[in-house]
Amino acid sequence: MTQSPKQLNLNAFLMGVGHHEAAWRHPRTEAHRVLEVKHFQELAQIAERGKLDSVFFADGLAIGPRVEHNTQAIFEPITLLTAMAVVTEHVGLIATASTGYNEPYNLARKFASLDHISGGRAGWNIVTSGGEDEARNFGYDETPDHAGRYDRAAEFVDVAVSLWDSWEDDALELDSETGRFADPSKVHTVDHEGERFRVRGPLNAPRSAQGRPVLVQAGSSESGKNFAAAYAEAVFTAQRTLAEGQDFYRDLKARVIKAGRDPQSLKILPGIVPFIGATEDEAKALEQEFTDLISPAYSLRQLSRMVGVDLTEHSLDAPLPPLPPIDEIQGNKSRYQLVKDLAENEGLTVRQLIAKLGGGRGHRTFAGTPEQIADEIQLWFENDAADGFNVMPPYLPGGLEDFTALVVPILQARGLFRTDYTATTLRGHYGLDRPESRYADRRHAATA
Amino acid sequence: MTQSPKQLNLNAFLMGVGHHEAAWRHPRTEAHRVLEVKHFQELAQIAERGKLDSVFFADGLAIGPRVEHNTQAIFEPITLLTAMAVVTEHVGLIATASTGYNEPYNLARKFASLDHISGGRAGWNIVTSGGEDEARNFGYDETPDHAGRYDRAAEFVDVAVSLWDSWEDDALELDSETGRFADPSKVHTVDHEGERFRVRGPLNAPRSAQGRPVLVQAGSSESGKNFAAAYAEAVFTAQRTLAEGQDFYRDLKARVIKAGRDPQSLKILPGIVPFIGATEDEAKALEQEFTDLISPAYSLRQLSRMVGVDLTEHSLDAPLPPLPPIDEIQGNKSRYQLVKDLAENEGLTVRQLIAKLGGGRGHRTFAGTPEQIADEIQLWFENDAADGFNVMPPYLPGGLEDFTALVVPILQARGLFRTDYTATTLRGHYGLDRPESRYADRRHAATA
Ligand SMILES: Cc1cc2nc3c(=O)[nH]c(=O)nc-3n(C[C@H](O)[C@H](O)[C@H](O)COP(=O)(O)O)c2cc1C
Ligand SMILES: Cc1cc2nc3c(=O)[nH]c(=O)nc-3n(C[C@H](O)[C@H](O)[C@H](O)COP(=O)(O)O)c2cc1C
Repeated sequence: MTQSPKQLNLNAFLMGVGHHEAAWRHPRTEAHRVLEVKHFQELAQIAERGKLDSVFFADGLAIGPRVEHNTQAIFEPITLLTAMAVVTEHVGLIATASTGYNEPYNLARKFASLDHISGGRAGWNIVTSGGEDEARNFGYDETPDHAGRYDRAAEFVDVAVSLWDSWEDDALELDSETGRFADPSKVHTVDHEGERFRVRGPLNAPRSAQGRPVLVQAGSSESGKNFAAAYAEAVFTAQRTLAEGQDFYRDLKARVIKAGRDPQSLKILPGIVPFIGATEDEAKALEQEFTDLISPAYSLRQLSRMVGVDLTEHSLDAPLPPLPPIDEIQGNKSRYQLVKDLAENEGLTVRQLIAKLGGGRGHRTFAGTPEQIADEIQLWFENDAADGFNVMPPYLPGGLEDFTALVVPILQARGLFRTDYTATTLRGHYGLDRPESRYADRRHAATA
Repeated sequence: MTQSPKQLNLNAFLMGVGHHEAAWRHPRTEAHRVLEVKHFQELAQIAERGKLDSVFFADGLAIGPRVEHNTQAIFEPITLLTAMAVVTEHVGLIATASTGYNEPYNLARKFASLDHISGGRAGWNIVTSGGEDEARNFGYDETPDHAGRYDRAAEFVDVAVSLWDSWEDDALELDSETGRFADPSKVHTVDHEGERFRVRGPLNAPRSAQGRPVLVQAGSSESGKNFAAAYAEAVFTAQRTLAEGQDFYRDLKARVIKAGRDPQSLKILPGIVPFIGATEDEAKALEQEFTDLISPAYSLRQLSRMVGVDLTEHSLDAPLPPLPPIDEIQGNKSRYQLVKDLAENEGLTVRQLIAKLGGGRGHRTFAGTPEQIADEIQLWFENDAADGFNVMPPYLPGGLEDFTALVVPILQARGLFRTDYTATTLRGHYGLDRPESRYADRRHAATA
């Protein structure tokens, strides 16, 4: 057994009592735990015992048409991760937040606060908010167009990074003798005057232990990939086969190089929904139990949103009707494409499609023994389809407990994953450099 | 000793290592603790041991010209209070947040999240952001005008309350048998179409244990008082003498009645900065130690901001120069008035004024024995100048420890303050009714 120099990055994507859409109806979960902050604190502790890089919450700024079934609509991610930060010491904490309906100053500050509270473990999953129901909570009648959303995201992230950099690392003095809290010559205005934002700065928070939060992204459209290539340090993505994963990986890493960056400075983490059993049959039977609990009415509504066609009156045993062209999709283009390909390539009926999507809304579901799951992870990792995985337990906490207790030790024994933390920051876990402040660079350039 | 039926409300206004502007230079504090979340968690626990109603953080959306001395510029209040929520069980948690530079949907949701994480202990100190340095972080060249800020605040709060009410109390079902998370007929759109905001709702969070966060306010201008009379459930205010406190109390309670509300539904809490000593002389000597540590350069800048005149070149031993009329003050009108009155009525030089303001930026400083402080609190409480106090320890944690260990037991022995919590929510501590959802009222009206 040789120690691989390259190490996997493993993120736990958390969601209520599990990713499977029927998770909360299965006896392995307790539905009321979605309301309990203790549940989420325990999940963070399980992830930390498993030495995972990070935990992550998705987010949206509306309930939309999902009220009956939306078990996520309780906590806001940054506050929830703060509650989890103070009962852990190592695991990274990644919150989704929208560039569409926030102000850069406020959001940069919230993340800086989580980053300080956690000692440098914060990450930001940057999303542009593609939902019409979200738009209507912020004064719009419809979703702002796709390209405009990414333009706004680019300017937004640029301002946020400038704000995080506005304090140089050694700006804080806290000198009770001289009475100085900070050295004003090392705290800089940002003076951003852009198309969408005008922000003077500086931020009212010093730099954190990791310099600034890790930038994560999860869009896979053309604009999404170009945005990721320019800004992201980790990318979450839904890839269904090794070949598709390799294509995506090659494509995105090439864009990163083209953007003038080191390809290792962006980690690609495809999603995997693992059903774990002592035997393959047990694992598949467990998956089937969850599939049997799916409520078709709910799933049809979810699917209708993904493909931009109302399917609620459509027959479950027919194939999908013709779908609108992708240009007309203003929301999540990559999810649309994934669902369309899946239905067409595998010739699925709507009922079959719903079952396939139930585990992780398009992410890859894999039922097997711990060895088989470790094999699959290793296969993707060693064949340039992934730098690690976004682990999406179908039910919680059990599915995360099993992954960390049964799959992680195999990966560790194979030398693919750390046996203990070697860093205290999220940036450290992901092997990313600690960036110097933009303003420190300028100072050095000036004195060089 | 008779048990008074009326009970005091006591809030701990927390700030770094203390309210006195030189606190962090005094040997009773450790400056580096301003960076440590544990420090703030301990403060919450001290307040809870003292059975206080709540803890509170002020906030601003800029550093402004105070970088050298601004020891507060680290954490954002909602995240910091979340970290404090999970290590306490009873004490209320009040965060300042601006109606000027937030979106109602986002802010309502953050407070709902804190309210859920804390089990119904959240409060919102509603501010309109009067600083020009704040305006410049959000695309404005100068502060939006005073009246317009309060108009926006009124519409903002209206939307926020509607959003918090958008789930009826019994909307959550969490029924794994039927597969229903919530009853959609009890989750309402808000459909707000106002002058400044258009928000459809519903909020993506159910109602909390206390229904909705407690609304707190701290503006004392005419518009500020009218706003408080219409919306606030608690008011923080700076009053320097019993007579002024009584005037303010009478004035504001009359406005509350005029607004059609029960005067007891709004608690008036003046600030007090207590220097506690075993003897009066010891207490006064302690205060003098802090005064001696004041840095005039910093104080002059603070004072310049309060009165709208640049005093940084002004002689310390002269009186204030003529001040602009109050109509020209677009920032904090009540603080301006307080400082002007103080300087004129007491004929103070700038140096003397700075010493007076050092303890609590205009709030009342009181140096004495625990008995004397308890007497003063009782005097105001029993003579219609206060429903309780906003306790502003000059140094932390010691000043809060002393207040809870030495002053609170006296108030308890006199029957003026609870000896144990009788409620688990902030609303409960303040003796406020748990409001029914606006939408439940409509349903009842319709079926009545
Ligand atoms: C693993 C994963 C997680 C995501 N989480 C969110 C989320 O929490 N909120 C959101 O609005 N979009 C989320 N998305 C969607 C993307 O961030 C992106 O907004 C969407 O794909 C639209 O961009 P695109 O058209 O470039 O693909 C997620 C996507 C993936 C693959
Ligand atoms: C105890 C107290 C605390 C306050 N805290 C804040 C604060 O945290 N942030 C802020 O912007 N203003 C704060 N203020 C100012 C008021 O909320 C209000 O914005 C200001 O007084 C201007 O309103 P006015 O002109 O109606 O007085 C505070 C005032 C008092 C008395």
